[in-house]
Amino acid sequence: RSGCCQIAIIYDGKYTNTNMRLKLPITCFILEIILIILFGVLVEYDKETDAKKWHHSNHSEYDNDFYYRYPSFQDVHVMIFIGFGFLMTFLQRYGFSSVGFNFLIAALALQWATLMQGFFHGMQGGKIHVGVESMINADFCTGSVLISFGAVLGKTSPVQLLVMAVFEVTLFAVNEFILLSLLGTRDAGGSMTIHTFGAYFGLMVARVLYRPELDKSKHKNSSVYHSDMFAMIGTLYLWMFWPSFNSAITAHGDDQHRTALNTYYSLAACTLSTYAMSALTADDGKLDMVHIQNAALAGGVAAGTAGEMMLTPFGSMIVGFLAGIISVLGYKYLSPILESKLKIQDTCGVHNLHGMPGVMGAIVGAVTASLATKEIYGDGLKDVFPMVAPDGRSASSQGGIQAISLAVTLGMALVGGLLVGFIMKLPIYGAPSDASCFEDSIYWEVSSKKLLETSKLCICPQPVDIVSLETQ
Amino acid sequence: RSGCCQIAIIYDGKYTNTNMRLKLPITCFILEIILIILFGVLVEYDKETDAKKWHHSNHSEYDNDFYYRYPSFQDVHVMIFIGFGFLMTFLQRYGFSSVGFNFLIAALALQWATLMQGFFHGMQGGKIHVGVESMINADFCTGSVLISFGAVLGKTSPVQLLVMAVFEVTLFAVNEFILLSLLGTRDAGGSMTIHTFGAYFGLMVARVLYRPELDKSKHKNSSVYHSDMFAMIGTLYLWMFWPSFNSAITAHGDDQHRTALNTYYSLAACTLSTYAMSALTADDGKLDMVHIQNAALAGGVAAGTAGEMMLTPFGSMIVGFLAGIISVLGYKYLSPILESKLKIQDTCGVHNLHGMPGVMGAIVGAVTASLATKEIYGDGLKDVFPMVAPDGRSASSQGGIQAISLAVTLGMALVGGLLVGFIMKLPIYGAPSDASCFEDSIYWEVSSKKLLETSKLCICPQPVDIVSLETQ
Amino acid sequence: RSGCCQIAIIYDGKYTNTNMRLKLPITCFILEIILIILFGVLVEYDKETDAKKWHHSNHSEYDNDFYYRYPSFQDVHVMIFIGFGFLMTFLQRYGFSSVGFNFLIAALALQWATLMQGFFHGMQGGKIHVGVESMINADFCTGSVLISFGAVLGKTSPVQLLVMAVFEVTLFAVNEFILLSLLGTRDAGGSMTIHTFGAYFGLMVARVLYRPELDKSKHKNSSVYHSDMFAMIGTLYLWMFWPSFNSAITAHGDDQHRTALNTYYSLAACTLSTYAMSALTADDGKLDMVHIQNAALAGGVAAGTAGEMMLTPFGSMIVGFLAGIISVLGYKYLSPILESKLKIQDTCGVHNLHGMPGVMGAIVGAVTASLATKEIYGDGLKDVFPMVAPDGRSASSQGGIQAISLAVTLGMALVGGLLVGFIMKLPIYGAPSDASCFEDSIYWEVSSKKLLETSKLCICPQPVDIVSLETQ
Repeated sequence: RSGCCQIAIIYDGKYTNTNMRLKLPITCFILEIILIILFGVLVEYDKETDAKKWHHSNHSEYDNDFYYRYPSFQDVHVMIFIGFGFLMTFLQRYGFSSVGFNFLIAALALQWATLMQGFFHGMQGGKIHVGVESMINADFCTGSVLISFGAVLGKTSPVQLLVMAVFEVTLFAVNEFILLSLLGTRDAGGSMTIHTFGAYFGLMVARVLYRPELDKSKHKNSSVYHSDMFAMIGTLYLWMFWPSFNSAITAHGDDQHRTALNTYYSLAACTLSTYAMSALTADDGKLDMVHIQNAALAGGVAAGTAGEMMLTPFGSMIVGFLAGIISVLGYKYLSPILESKLKIQDTCGVHNLHGMPGVMGAIVGAVTASLATKEIYGDGLKDVFPMVAPDGRSASSQGGIQAISLAVTLGMALVGGLLVGFIMKLPIYGAPSDASCFEDSIYWEVSSKKLLETSKLCICPQPVDIVSLETQ
Repeated sequence: RSGCCQIAIIYDGKYTNTNMRLKLPITCFILEIILIILFGVLVEYDKETDAKKWHHSNHSEYDNDFYYRYPSFQDVHVMIFIGFGFLMTFLQRYGFSSVGFNFLIAALALQWATLMQGFFHGMQGGKIHVGVESMINADFCTGSVLISFGAVLGKTSPVQLLVMAVFEVTLFAVNEFILLSLLGTRDAGGSMTIHTFGAYFGLMVARVLYRPELDKSKHKNSSVYHSDMFAMIGTLYLWMFWPSFNSAITAHGDDQHRTALNTYYSLAACTLSTYAMSALTADDGKLDMVHIQNAALAGGVAAGTAGEMMLTPFGSMIVGFLAGIISVLGYKYLSPILESKLKIQDTCGVHNLHGMPGVMGAIVGAVTASLATKEIYGDGLKDVFPMVAPDGRSASSQGGIQAISLAVTLGMALVGGLLVGFIMKLPIYGAPSDASCFEDSIYWEVSSKKLLETSKLCICPQPVDIVSLETQ
Repeated sequence: RSGCCQIAIIYDGKYTNTNMRLKLPITCFILEIILIILFGVLVEYDKETDAKKWHHSNHSEYDNDFYYRYPSFQDVHVMIFIGFGFLMTFLQRYGFSSVGFNFLIAALALQWATLMQGFFHGMQGGKIHVGVESMINADFCTGSVLISFGAVLGKTSPVQLLVMAVFEVTLFAVNEFILLSLLGTRDAGGSMTIHTFGAYFGLMVARVLYRPELDKSKHKNSSVYHSDMFAMIGTLYLWMFWPSFNSAITAHGDDQHRTALNTYYSLAACTLSTYAMSALTADDGKLDMVHIQNAALAGGVAAGTAGEMMLTPFGSMIVGFLAGIISVLGYKYLSPILESKLKIQDTCGVHNLHGMPGVMGAIVGAVTASLATKEIYGDGLKDVFPMVAPDGRSASSQGGIQAISLAVTLGMALVGGLLVGFIMKLPIYGAPSDASCFEDSIYWEVSSKKLLETSKLCICPQPVDIVSLETQ
């Protein structure tokens, strides 16, 4: 009999090059052993985690930064593993891979990021010092990789993704170093370093990996009812914890407090405009789960740079409001063009959720920075703009630097994505065929029973007696 | 062919008045633009979030209230969006709407609540000051709206819900002002202000919106296996984080600590009595998911007022134990009567989870307050009962005030719900027909594939070849 | 007609001894009333939760331990109720029971644990003092019971589980007292007290409750697609919050900070080796969800004892890396042997996730302790090893004590599990028949509609027209 259910079964036998029995273990083992050796040679506890160093100076146990950063870290951690992981489970037959590969590459990326960021951002005495701040920064860098994962979701093997993670983390750290250390850019929530970088890197990779015959697996590149419900878990955790994300590494005190507050208002306003635009752009006025799951988060992305600044709740809400509108319009009108004209198959629409809102956030940050004055920030100016206060560069210079940083980030992301895309295109990683994209059973044990359940959910070209398939 | 699957398809074409293409965007845009303007005119950072004000006085960055309230805020935030959102996904074909409309009206309500609560609870220099405490209070107020949403779940359009949210938030703020500011009532966890108010307001709205022919969509007003699993996510997050909810805005120090502890014990005892009563009230002794999902939470509601007082673990457990019993009995015996006699169709049974336990919590609070003495509270009396200590009203007066506050709240909720119910009854919001209640596909894009999946889950009056429906 | 769907319906009528109408309410009510009485007699607020005691001494409200333990507590709480609860929902027809019985026995166990741990670990003036530390400890003890639950999952009645919880909590408290108080063992994250004890206790219970004819319900002892997705929610919450778990009750300051960091690296390395081994041990190189859901957590278990020590990130990663390998090998090769040779039917494979990694963690802890020196720990030595510093036992003695503690724990667990297993084997608790194991509908209301949905997911020996079953 024909029908997609049978096609799925055929896949299993046919494309044996996707067999991961050696490729994946070898990659994982080599990478992890290298990591362990480098950690052994290079990594040390910082002065807040080392028993001797901490007790060497005189302070209360309660002054340890653990108590002022760790709750934020845990929220960020949930966003990385549950938020990103479940957001991508919207595909009907790709839930294991979405949440499972997200888990795998995040676990790798956070280790590699610890080394790369530590290397670029200040080794002390030849050692990388780790503590809760390095954990947050590593999770941030990981987030960038997961954004790129969203662009190529369903079309890559786990080995390809690990390779991408290694290179992208490295380039992320270089870009972050240029911005934060060399240029003195402010980007606490990563509108540029995380979202813009991750999105355009991933889009360029997707461009290089363009599959002209992806239509073959088109029927699986969509959601079913329960997969959309799982995706909403991811969406809501990202939405709820975004204030923690943007404020996780800002200066202590009012800075963290203000950043969380700004992001909270930006997201709330964004949600209203997302629902409005989703209904408005549909002929029948029905809400589209794709918009709700994604565009409602654009307010967090767009507040990533300016969130720590005196953006005011008023400003935050305007930013979020516009971000939601832009993002829905992107999903509705721009994504099809990206695919047809630019040959970029952006599975999760990261251009709409992270790309455009990230650029918008960078611009908002540049403008807000250029308007900073001692009158508005008082003695807090030095926390938000250490390069400006007390007698550094002018606020408008800072704004200019912010704008330059956006350009640098875009350049790094596009060139980096191009190069890494070609590395990922080598036919040695066991990538799926065009017809077996968006399909868990290529890389995961999915029993015939499990297959039956999901098979019923796909569109069959002709009536199929679903139960009798079981006996094939 | 007949069968519910086909009926569902018919709905789509027939009731075109449910088209949200203009209604929803116009409502969202107008509300959000009004909000943005009012925020621009009225809202300022408080002294803990403003860069200048914070740095004006001399203190450690670590003294910022962010570090002592924000973790509680995040737990409350999860309860609002994941807890309430997923608790209501138990309906088989209403998951998108449950979690999606919850998201929408919560995002609106928290913005509007910030303004209303700020207006009533102390503008300074003509400005509303915002920070982590206003965020928690706004989320609390939002919780009340979501309780009312539970009563009308499945029977309203998103525009109706937004209208309800605007009015309910306003009345909530008035009632809260009367209780907390005018009467000096103690209600940190909101047994009265949040639960009693939200429940009876929602019940009155449901009464006004009574649908005599709701039987037409009866087959969809129930759960399926996976929808009950999703609902358990909501239940457990509410259960786990309720100690944070009740303690989120109590005084710092022992008060927050004690409130969390009392709530923890109340919930644990409530869970045991809920399981016991669920089995006891079933002929075959089988547990009912409705009870587990809801009644096990009644212990948190009932400890909302007295939680911050010296209720003792012993007292907390008795309160929780009784709350669980009352709640299950309500689901089993009272809800059917409410529907048949009082014409209140309470979809989620909010009367059993929030109404009766809320009233019980208010009474427990009144009794506990009237027993407060300097011997028991020591110098902590002023934190828990600032109106009593050092030489204010007597403890029994405080108890009397607490009891009066319950009456005020019930009155405000019932009258408010009545009025707002009639506003919501206007035939301009695109409410679903009786036959299309509890159905996502009225307001959401649900592809035929998605529809197929859910269609198979409904009871059909006669055998239906489910696959051939696909080809219609 | 034959087919598993029909079999499921037959069960309902046939095994009436599983009726919980009296058994469960009587058990719950008696246990809860005993608990309430004992709490009334024995339990008091500690000095951080009592209004009078707290205000008696002179300190800032912000010094209350609530602010330094409660965020960790909430993470642990999520692990207990969402983590363990959803991890066990992988079974296709046992989701209600997995998450629901987990909820019930955890709610009981944490109350009973408060009494037992309070009794053994220091009553003051005849009273047990409670606060956030007792809440964390009670949740820890509960975790041990839930591990044992995993071994017998699907084969016990809720009454049996409550009986197990009461006895296991008691024995847990005795073992914990011997280790922590008598021997001065260090085991902050519970590699021994929680994981080793819970696993071997549960395995021995499973041995006593061995069912030779469990094959009858074999077709239900496996997952389906969506149940594996729900289980991943549990896995990820356990994974993300494990750093909070291991650090929840270590000393304040660098100790908590270091423990979280070590656990974070151990888990990350463990994830890589788990994926590698899962692909390597499959003929077709496909990843197995069982491994990902479970073995990726072994790194947290294995870092439970040494996590607070100066294990270094390097050491932590090696530990995690090896734990993942051992755990996957256990699932693949050891579990079948345990069942066929030792007659231990370990439903969740707790031997692989908690047993072996727990023993490994104990050994790592013993070795790390024996290597402790003043040079490495400085003045922090007294926090990590109070029995060693300043002039107590030698580090190698501490190491020896740690090794002895493992032996004591294993002995207590095996003997305790044996005895409690026989108590649980009494034919009075309404245990399911061999054919009705792994089946929610024995103890839960599952409407025919719900049944239909799940029925379709089981393997039928011959084609079944699933819709017509509805009309039977």
